[in-house]
Amino acid sequence: MTAHDPYDPKEFYDNLVKHKLVLPGTTPGIFGRGAEFEKVLLGFNNLVSRIASDDSAELMLFPPCVDRKLIEKVGYMKSFPHLAGTVFSFCGHDAQHRDLLGRIQDGKPWADLLEMSDISLTPAVCYPVYGNLTGTLPEKGRLVDLTGWVYRHEPSPEPTRMVSFRMREFVRAADADTVIEWRNTWKERGLQLLLELGLPAKLDTASDAFFGRGGKMLAANQRDQQLKFEVLVPVISAENPTAVCSFNYHQDHFGKTFDIKAANGEVAQTACMAFGLERMTMAMFKTHGFVTAQWPESVKKLLWP
Amino acid sequence: MTAHDPYDPKEFYDNLVKHKLVLPGTTPGIFGRGAEFEKVLLGFNNLVSRIASDDSAELMLFPPCVDRKLIEKVGYMKSFPHLAGTVFSFCGHDAQHRDLLGRIQDGKPWADLLEMSDISLTPAVCYPVYGNLTGTLPEKGRLVDLTGWVYRHEPSPEPTRMVSFRMREFVRAADADTVIEWRNTWKERGLQLLLELGLPAKLDTASDAFFGRGGKMLAANQRDQQLKFEVLVPVISAENPTAVCSFNYHQDHFGKTFDIKAANGEVAQTACMAFGLERMTMAMFKTHGFVTAQWPESVKKLLWP
Repeated sequence: MTAHDPYDPKEFYDNLVKHKLVLPGTTPGIFGRGAEFEKVLLGFNNLVSRIASDDSAELMLFPPCVDRKLIEKVGYMKSFPHLAGTVFSFCGHDAQHRDLLGRIQDGKPWADLLEMSDISLTPAVCYPVYGNLTGTLPEKGRLVDLTGWVYRHEPSPEPTRMVSFRMREFVRAADADTVIEWRNTWKERGLQLLLELGLPAKLDTASDAFFGRGGKMLAANQRDQQLKFEVLVPVISAENPTAVCSFNYHQDHFGKTFDIKAANGEVAQTACMAFGLERMTMAMFKTHGFVTAQWPESVKKLLWP
Repeated sequence: MTAHDPYDPKEFYDNLVKHKLVLPGTTPGIFGRGAEFEKVLLGFNNLVSRIASDDSAELMLFPPCVDRKLIEKVGYMKSFPHLAGTVFSFCGHDAQHRDLLGRIQDGKPWADLLEMSDISLTPAVCYPVYGNLTGTLPEKGRLVDLTGWVYRHEPSPEPTRMVSFRMREFVRAADADTVIEWRNTWKERGLQLLLELGLPAKLDTASDAFFGRGGKMLAANQRDQQLKFEVLVPVISAENPTAVCSFNYHQDHFGKTFDIKAANGEVAQTACMAFGLERMTMAMFKTHGFVTAQWPESVKKLLWP
């Protein structure tokens, strides 16, 4: 007899469905969210807004699609080709259309009837921002506030590994000292916020899931230089807690790519921090139970003041 | 000398950019939205929520991506193949990855290195709903409240014709009488709401942009049967006002496809109504000017009570 795993991913997913928090989809990584799930997600996102309200961030909002050239330009196909989504479309006429419909009816492939478009799915909400920062930044740099949908091509039945999900993100562009100080402030704020929400959260250095053999070196380098941190909460595993919040220091990568200068004349440095809104929400349900009415009063007060 | 066209699309777009309402993109139909644009959009969406607050709609939320099989199942590739977006992804290893990067560097096509995935872009926020209604509906049917991003592959520099935009939508499923009565209530409500916001709005019968030669017949049929209505406001043309709101009566199309039964045992009928949130917002800026502080007090009170 095997001991019951309190972090079993399938049991967690089934519970989300049973409580109508998740509306099951028909393909892995894509599913609907119910009213109560959204109430928690929006409550948390509003709480982040209140915490950041004195920072005078500029709000920008971008669609879940971007110019494919942007994905090429930022090096996404170099680092994460396996996670990218590229949009293809049908450009044929009546004859090709008849062919297309016949193939769909017969359950045959129809990929070759489509053409690559100029559009990709947005892999991180910050990518479209940098082109808007080109030029010389003001004295204190700039801070941008973003919420949006992102795409990661890693279909999985595991509920925290979604193909499409929302991020609440802040992007800081300035000189190195200012950017690092901002990143450090949010490292404390982010961890503190999650602890106040009663989550067993821990901060750790991290690395991205870079592609291929060369990617292993990039990941090791990122860890060595402490360029990425994550806040982790156990959701579907006690040993491998889930990243619900991450901090990335890009050094001058985007400053160079998009010709952004700090006020001191040097190439601007950038950093971003983001909450995975669905993962945060799932962490709350895992920790406090599937019925929000039974959550601790202090938590409810923070989410819905 | 040509007379100045007060509805010139390019001038309207340039004004949106000048006032930081729109953050220009690098490919047609994809652009960012600024803080003031979002303030109007959210103000309007909240106003719709208040108007619908006594309707007891169930909230559901879906990502901007769906199962490709759903797009096939609902007949979207039959009616609107030219507007669909299908996601392709890279499934190769290190050698193919080197090839991919070489081609991107040389500006050569790399479409053939990708494979069709199981995922499509969501063309209308209501499609993922119907699978959640399968079975027999309660006595009064069901009403679902949705907000989400949709994709239409019609890249254009014309600002109201976006590739990616948001819809606020309601879906009603019940017996025919109930559905038609609900549709008629919203026809009045929708027009009334826009008139109260000071927009020169008009209701008209309409048809969808069905594909190809066969599509012309479908569109004529849709008009004859008065299955589609739109509320129109002049934004980039006085002669061809922009649809900012539409009402679609699907009869038993989705009821049959998803095996939804009304409480009376018959195949359920469905209808939906949706506001194009970006188009509504643009109609407001076109009508009241680009500076919200100068808008009529009555309008500001409705948007930000």
